[in-house]
Amino acid sequence: MPTQAVNLADKLKLFDELWAPKVVGSFNGHDLIVVKVKGRFVWHSHPDTDDLFLVLKGRLTIEMREGAVTLGPGELYVVPRGLEHCPTADEETELLLIEPEGTPNTGDPATAAPKPKI
Amino acid sequence: MPTQAVNLADKLKLFDELWAPKVVGSFNGHDLIVVKVKGRFVWHSHPDTDDLFLVLKGRLTIEMREGAVTLGPGELYVVPRGLEHCPTADEETELLLIEPEGTPNTGDPATAAPKPKI
Repeated sequence: MPTQAVNLADKLKLFDELWAPKVVGSFNGHDLIVVKVKGRFVWHSHPDTDDLFLVLKGRLTIEMREGAVTLGPGELYVVPRGLEHCPTADEETELLLIEPEGTPNTGDPATAAPKPKI
Repeated sequence: MPTQAVNLADKLKLFDELWAPKVVGSFNGHDLIVVKVKGRFVWHSHPDTDDLFLVLKGRLTIEMREGAVTLGPGELYVVPRGLEHCPTADEETELLLIEPEGTPNTGDPATAAPKPKI
């Protein structure tokens, strides 16, 4: 068993890159991920998994074809599987994500970022 | 699709009971749960699922037979499936939990608390 809790803020201090997800733990076949984002991502969807976003710091807008949702710290949103979405952040924003192991962040393995463990 | 983010602090303002989990969302067949705890729970394990704890406020100790882990705000811990544990909090503590739908909080359906949606 791990002998220490995962401090999310401490993990986020370990890197500066944007849109570069880092795996900080594992839960029921899912990766627990922290990521820093700023600017606009790409429209994409995940056919086989819901997409969970929890804002730790900053502000995230998740655009969807039917409308947008904006999240501040302590707010979460689950994009249902298959639904196209485009995350956008005007300021640098820190997120906790939960995704099945191996999920490509862009929805497409050819363009997906690697997800190293930290 | 849900048109609003889930504000965890706002959800936690809706109730006062301790050890009374409330479902605030759904993700890949799992319930997203908020709960207030204080004092000592019971030793239990979940044979079929890992157990994810994220502290939002306060301080939680998770006792396990091999040792204890203490978590403050912004810290998470995953108890591996099958491992006996006993959560304890000296002060009132607020948590986000993620559990497969229908998971009994005590590990035993006979003694488990109901999990209403709020």
